[in-house]
Amino acid sequence: MIVVKIGGAAGISHDSLCADAAALVARGERLVIVHGGSDATTTLARQLGHEPQFITSPSGHSSRRTDPRTLEIFQMACRGVVNQSLVLGLVRRGVRAVGVSGIDASLWRGTRKAAIRALEAGRTRIIRDDCSGSVEHVDPALLNTLLDAGCTPVISPPGLSEANEPINVDADRAAARTAAALRASTLCLLSNVPGLLRAYPDEESLVSSITIERLDEAESLAQGRMKNKVLAAREALLAGVPRVIIGDARVASPITRALEGAGTVFA
Amino acid sequence: MIVVKIGGAAGISHDSLCADAAALVARGERLVIVHGGSDATTTLARQLGHEPQFITSPSGHSSRRTDPRTLEIFQMACRGVVNQSLVLGLVRRGVRAVGVSGIDASLWRGTRKAAIRALEAGRTRIIRDDCSGSVEHVDPALLNTLLDAGCTPVISPPGLSEANEPINVDADRAAARTAAALRASTLCLLSNVPGLLRAYPDEESLVSSITIERLDEAESLAQGRMKNKVLAAREALLAGVPRVIIGDARVASPITRALEGAGTVFA
Repeated sequence: MIVVKIGGAAGISHDSLCADAAALVARGERLVIVHGGSDATTTLARQLGHEPQFITSPSGHSSRRTDPRTLEIFQMACRGVVNQSLVLGLVRRGVRAVGVSGIDASLWRGTRKAAIRALEAGRTRIIRDDCSGSVEHVDPALLNTLLDAGCTPVISPPGLSEANEPINVDADRAAARTAAALRASTLCLLSNVPGLLRAYPDEESLVSSITIERLDEAESLAQGRMKNKVLAAREALLAGVPRVIIGDARVASPITRALEGAGTVFA
Repeated sequence: MIVVKIGGAAGISHDSLCADAAALVARGERLVIVHGGSDATTTLARQLGHEPQFITSPSGHSSRRTDPRTLEIFQMACRGVVNQSLVLGLVRRGVRAVGVSGIDASLWRGTRKAAIRALEAGRTRIIRDDCSGSVEHVDPALLNTLLDAGCTPVISPPGLSEANEPINVDADRAAARTAAALRASTLCLLSNVPGLLRAYPDEESLVSSITIERLDEAESLAQGRMKNKVLAAREALLAGVPRVIIGDARVASPITRALEGAGTVFA
């Protein structure tokens, strides 16, 4: 069982991913694909005249401001753009792909952040109507039902809060929870970098492996979006996933390459 | 086994439908819900500045012009708005609802219209890049897998063409094909009218029942969107579905009411 999270940044081809996934499924691999929708949300929000906003926490962490309208746009982008594109790419290659969101059959249960502290012009503001949160519980039943029937699940945000509201959740960390719930042997986090870089953005400075004892060092190296990937790797490892690979989505056969050890291997 | 198609026009509450569906599922009914996205597509297209266009065929039939951009908007509206809303409404009521689109696991296979004849200012124009078509084959395997696992499928367009392209398909007629493939006992087509009206829009002129021999008469009475519903009823009956009910989605317990015979019963 392999869980693959695919990023959505520029330079990432769904074609390479889908072709590789189809080859793995044809060989009998049980595969679950997870994606987010951040870049597609930004594009759609601009088209709709609802300019994307980002919040910086007092600790310096940046995240999308998800007001109720942004949540609607996020759902259209995740479900109606990214998920449809991946499912279509797989179906075209003979895979029985099935798109599911985190709210389907309460797949991704979590908690909405009731109060977010945001730095604005040097002052801290509390935001109470944000529709973001984190996935805390994954119900593997629907995924196992689909896999047992020869289908390949493609999972999209949002998640579902304790009050049954959709919430914007980080897909890297949700993928980590999903890999743990499915007792996957490997979690691959694929994006537009070769892996964790010692001197970002120098791609020659790739860190090829990280042991569980050196996770703190990995976290101190991570920049920007990589912070969430390293955090996801930590969560997956601590939840019993034997191997996490942060790899490159921009290459041919990106899943196979990562499984062969290209990228940063956490074990 | 009951297949319910729910319309999206103004005045239709997803709450009533979801509450009723949850009660039926709790009693052990096998239920599949189908929806379209016409009204949501029109709303989103206007917000995106891509004004909706409709085509009139030489025979007087009106349909949405689905250029490639409209197909993208249609998918966002169907999957990211209507489907998410129905799934959420069901999950909130304890139903293990799972949203699937017609492209998932090649559920709704059909044909793209390679050439559409459109009347424009008295002349006939041929449109060759339209992304609409019709569903001709429904694979019930995924739906039965989900139903057997205690899940309730909520099916959204698009369908999938013979060339593996997404296509805008009429959800009433796709629901008819779906009911036939599932060997459903009843197909309910619920919208913002009480049923087929002898003198549209006079709601007192409801036709309460239609036998298979009187289908031509029903077709001659149907106006606007009702034409597709009567055509769907015909297709379902001819494909072996014993009973089709065109009923009112605007009332409390709309599915139960229809199953009790409120509306126009085709048998």
